[in-house]
Amino acid sequence: MKAEIITIGDEILIGQIVDTNSAWLGRILNKEGIDVLHIQSISDDKQSIKDAVELAFSRAELVLMTGGLGPTQDDITRETLLEYFDDELEMNEEVLAHLEQIFHKRGRKMLDINRGQALVPKKCEVLFNIQGTAPAMLFKHNGKWLASMPGVPYEMKHIVSNELLPKVRANFKLEEIKHRTITTYGVPESLLAKKIELFVDMLPSSIRPAYLPNLNIVRFRLSGRGGNTIEQELDEHMQRIVNYLGHNVVLSQKDETPAEHLMGLLKEKNLKVTMAESCTGGYVAHQLTCLPGASAVFKGSLVAYDYDVKTTELGVPEDVLLKTGAVSQETVEFMCTKVREKYNSDIGIGISGIAGPDGGTDDKPVGTVYVGVSDGTNTNVQCYHFHGERIKIIQRTSNAAYNMARKLVLGIS
Amino acid sequence: MKAEIITIGDEILIGQIVDTNSAWLGRILNKEGIDVLHIQSISDDKQSIKDAVELAFSRAELVLMTGGLGPTQDDITRETLLEYFDDELEMNEEVLAHLEQIFHKRGRKMLDINRGQALVPKKCEVLFNIQGTAPAMLFKHNGKWLASMPGVPYEMKHIVSNELLPKVRANFKLEEIKHRTITTYGVPESLLAKKIELFVDMLPSSIRPAYLPNLNIVRFRLSGRGGNTIEQELDEHMQRIVNYLGHNVVLSQKDETPAEHLMGLLKEKNLKVTMAESCTGGYVAHQLTCLPGASAVFKGSLVAYDYDVKTTELGVPEDVLLKTGAVSQETVEFMCTKVREKYNSDIGIGISGIAGPDGGTDDKPVGTVYVGVSDGTNTNVQCYHFHGERIKIIQRTSNAAYNMARKLVLGIS
Repeated sequence: MKAEIITIGDEILIGQIVDTNSAWLGRILNKEGIDVLHIQSISDDKQSIKDAVELAFSRAELVLMTGGLGPTQDDITRETLLEYFDDELEMNEEVLAHLEQIFHKRGRKMLDINRGQALVPKKCEVLFNIQGTAPAMLFKHNGKWLASMPGVPYEMKHIVSNELLPKVRANFKLEEIKHRTITTYGVPESLLAKKIELFVDMLPSSIRPAYLPNLNIVRFRLSGRGGNTIEQELDEHMQRIVNYLGHNVVLSQKDETPAEHLMGLLKEKNLKVTMAESCTGGYVAHQLTCLPGASAVFKGSLVAYDYDVKTTELGVPEDVLLKTGAVSQETVEFMCTKVREKYNSDIGIGISGIAGPDGGTDDKPVGTVYVGVSDGTNTNVQCYHFHGERIKIIQRTSNAAYNMARKLVLGIS
Repeated sequence: MKAEIITIGDEILIGQIVDTNSAWLGRILNKEGIDVLHIQSISDDKQSIKDAVELAFSRAELVLMTGGLGPTQDDITRETLLEYFDDELEMNEEVLAHLEQIFHKRGRKMLDINRGQALVPKKCEVLFNIQGTAPAMLFKHNGKWLASMPGVPYEMKHIVSNELLPKVRANFKLEEIKHRTITTYGVPESLLAKKIELFVDMLPSSIRPAYLPNLNIVRFRLSGRGGNTIEQELDEHMQRIVNYLGHNVVLSQKDETPAEHLMGLLKEKNLKVTMAESCTGGYVAHQLTCLPGASAVFKGSLVAYDYDVKTTELGVPEDVLLKTGAVSQETVEFMCTKVREKYNSDIGIGISGIAGPDGGTDDKPVGTVYVGVSDGTNTNVQCYHFHGERIKIIQRTSNAAYNMARKLVLGIS
């Protein structure tokens, strides 16, 4: 089954927001065995919407649209679909009751523009939006389906998972695509490809490889569709590659972030981590705390941005800071060992560097970052020279820190 | 001038990565007065690429493609364009010298697949990629331009800014679109629209409004194109709306995040902020520290995730924690006042809440968050009930905290 995604909104085209809906939809549909072959992002413009629908119907059986269903004047999707399907509006009492309840619960007075959201096209099936005010609409047209949903991500996700997919599963025969993805650290894409060339050349035509490089990490994926044996085939091929690369290169045998992987490791070994962050400014802690269940492995982090905080809170000696600087082997060694003790944890991570754009020197240019990890017995500090803009340096540093912590926990030197 | 963006890669369609390139391109092109009317995301597949190019050429003068230029087997863009333009490859000595230099600098041996990246189509102009190994290509075809660039964001950005745009500016006549955007907090989209309905109805047809809601924030934008007077017209219309809404609702008169806005305010008033974060786990600090120059206004943050850390590091009394719980008015009051003193800053922010998915109770369901701000004289704590998934609750909390800090600094109660 082929699907196509259409996201509507000038804010996407002028880059005021990043379209994360498509990625989420792509992931969910792929898991169901539905191939997304095209994503179109288009303007809040009637003709553009009609053209996009026409094109999508010409190459997909399931069309998912998001956006343009709000109550305000710039929201024209419903009106346009009404014209496209030659339909008319009617009041949906169930939706109206839901709207009244929402407004009552929020203690807000219901306006005419809000009430107008309960008007739905006669030909559509309403996909109930319990999280928000705009109902989603499912049109069936010459055996093909089009679902129009609000662009607000959590509303859209809830509608797809709870309203749309059960109907799709019940009406179409789906065959899942299977993937195996590993996450590697520190080997550039071309070098990785060269390393595993022989394994990749041996893949059957039913299995497709892909390299996804990002921030010193390359995810390597094998994908295939082919009945009962495909899962086993994928496992076997991937296992050979993992064995060959080894755990120094293979950060994880899953598609997960370095923080996710470390969390799993720490849970398994019942260890807790803390960190002292300077240039990463809370990002490293956030990578862990955005994951449900982080409290099982994480006690806290000290974002020691200021010189003062480094001395008073972490006890980095003034003379060390003066002699070697805040961005140095010595300072970071202090940071990781001290935060580990102070916050009473098993693993301590320390980070100090120059994220830029200012602050670089000839000696220590922007991108110079020291990362230290300690378990009380072993302490390892490394100096990195990252490139790219500020946020990329922060993100690369976070990946490096989690990879170093992983290797410390696993005893890989 | 109309442009179209084509992003190539199965990883986009299956949602393994979020396409941030398009948003960046949209923003940059819009600023230049180039309208992006369509974005297509397509598969690493020859026919899909050719069809997408054909479609793009039928509706745009400038086509920007990203992706599929890496050295590995799944990268087929160059080969496909070669067929599309009926062209052949030749070795580009300048690119080859650049590649040799990169590999030399990184201390890596150059492989045949790397050397192959210096082969470029004869008909194209090379857009030099000083940040990476894959050269970008500019094809001119029936008066229209197509640029094919690598998908690695920082490489693509550098090529567009330094290689492509200067050529576009020199060859096409561009008229900028002007925007004015304000950022409002705490008023839902429909209510905001109702509030400013009269102002919006009075807009001339040359000015277009848009509402962009996200995480308790609604950005409101006016856009217009129309010679010399448009800037002044936009300013006048927006100013009337700002005056009417007031600074309680208008968080910023620019398109900026709450953290960016607070940073500006603090710089202006020469104040420093610190925070004690529990459920946001470093995210609030990160929102500030991802901005260049944050060190001027930020001293540090204490991510007090664990019970222990709250008592030993922040001195929240055990009996307060026992009596009222870690998620309470009393605890957060301690957190914001103590971190302010301890880290010797002007403004302290304290946050404790239940981000979920676990940890909720009947009394304090998931989404219950206390945020406190203090300047030593005034301390303000508020309880919020946010909805949505874990990361959304964290992000909503961050927006609330920065808005509360803004109001404290401005003396708005």
